[in-house]
Amino acid sequence: MAHWARFRHNQEVRFGQLEGGTIKVYEGDLFSSPKSTGDTVPLADVELLTPVEPSKMVALAHNLHPLIKKTNGSVPDEPMYLLKANSSFHPTGKPIRRPKAYDGKIIFEGELGLVIGKTCRDVPIDKALDYLFGVTCINDVTSIEILNKSPVMQQWVRSKAADTFGVMGPVVATGLNPNGLTIRSVLNGEERQNYSVSDFVFTPAEIISHISGDMTLLPGDVIACGTSVGAGSMKPGSVIEIIIDGVGTLSNTFEG
Amino acid sequence: MAHWARFRHNQEVRFGQLEGGTIKVYEGDLFSSPKSTGDTVPLADVELLTPVEPSKMVALAHNLHPLIKKTNGSVPDEPMYLLKANSSFHPTGKPIRRPKAYDGKIIFEGELGLVIGKTCRDVPIDKALDYLFGVTCINDVTSIEILNKSPVMQQWVRSKAADTFGVMGPVVATGLNPNGLTIRSVLNGEERQNYSVSDFVFTPAEIISHISGDMTLLPGDVIACGTSVGAGSMKPGSVIEIIIDGVGTLSNTFEG
Repeated sequence: MAHWARFRHNQEVRFGQLEGGTIKVYEGDLFSSPKSTGDTVPLADVELLTPVEPSKMVALAHNLHPLIKKTNGSVPDEPMYLLKANSSFHPTGKPIRRPKAYDGKIIFEGELGLVIGKTCRDVPIDKALDYLFGVTCINDVTSIEILNKSPVMQQWVRSKAADTFGVMGPVVATGLNPNGLTIRSVLNGEERQNYSVSDFVFTPAEIISHISGDMTLLPGDVIACGTSVGAGSMKPGSVIEIIIDGVGTLSNTFEG
Repeated sequence: MAHWARFRHNQEVRFGQLEGGTIKVYEGDLFSSPKSTGDTVPLADVELLTPVEPSKMVALAHNLHPLIKKTNGSVPDEPMYLLKANSSFHPTGKPIRRPKAYDGKIIFEGELGLVIGKTCRDVPIDKALDYLFGVTCINDVTSIEILNKSPVMQQWVRSKAADTFGVMGPVVATGLNPNGLTIRSVLNGEERQNYSVSDFVFTPAEIISHISGDMTLLPGDVIACGTSVGAGSMKPGSVIEIIIDGVGTLSNTFEG
């Protein structure tokens, strides 16, 4: 069980294990026996970055029974997903920004993020969690009025691909059973989402197995598992926190 | 006017200008005053790689009037797009492979690829081509039976994200006017697609401007402009060529 953070300190990008208010610095490859440097840095002295640098972020839709029920939707028979743009990846603590070209509602969506630890392709469900490095908190920010505005097609990618919309962190937590986790979203101090992985249509293992049948997943790739009821609109100045016990709090303001 | 190729030669990845059967090797950053090394390498001695390594590939749908007309579709009022997975990027000359988890039809889609040369965000239409580095040929390979198989949502990303499905190359050609180009697809020696950029719903400049209003485009990012009528199914052993005059021929076999 460790909390891996990536950070900038004195102009340098490093990574390490966060314990209380201190980061124990490591070097090498996070996914392949990183070595402790012996250095420690106070958390207060660093700028946290996204905990990993994914080659891709796959994001599920229609994966939470409570939301499907509330919207009178159908339960899919396979995981449904899109990709978030790599240019959208954004860390804790930095403002979420509105794209200039869009003046509609922007919503937060609190989600569980699965971080892949080993290259995987065509893995069976019963082996899939062997490829999970850890989990993180995701805010799958969405320009919700874009999603259904065109009669030609649903714009899943476009509504979720803007800069700063792929929020993840603050750390990747290893050693947790993802099936037992609860995801909470707190807007300006008020709880708006509180749901558990047991409400998923597809379990983390089923999701990893399925996507690995479609494409190769690489170390550091992230799967955002979809959101549940309570996702909602942010106003300029809103503070949005996505909280997973045992992982931490992903906290951002919405610049508007 | 240059033809930029990226290649492996004696175990080393390099890039340079292809002229006839010879590559003049360059070093530095392709997008920022690369320098000639003075070396030349015969094309016959190298393994061509994808000509650039995009941080993302944006792929348009519903952008060709002839295809929209043929399918009785509606003309969109804005560019419609998805993202191809970075793990799908694939060069000329290497076989396109079927994902193990899918046994349906796999189609080629010949397309124009726009390669971005400078970071751009919120660029107006009349400045957009200043950010274009050059153009390439794209085969936007698609597991077409996945697209509409679920009643829950259209699976644009999934049907186009498999490994080897983001085929691009053989080179990036600079100095061409993208508006005058013709895209042809030749399957086993028989022409299947032949359409011109003048059939686009949105011009290259309009596409770059629009997407740059949604997200930051980075040097090397690629926009696949959508396909027209004639895209079709490949059989094991098929040879599929996407040809743009002035750019070259992107040629792959379909392993099946």
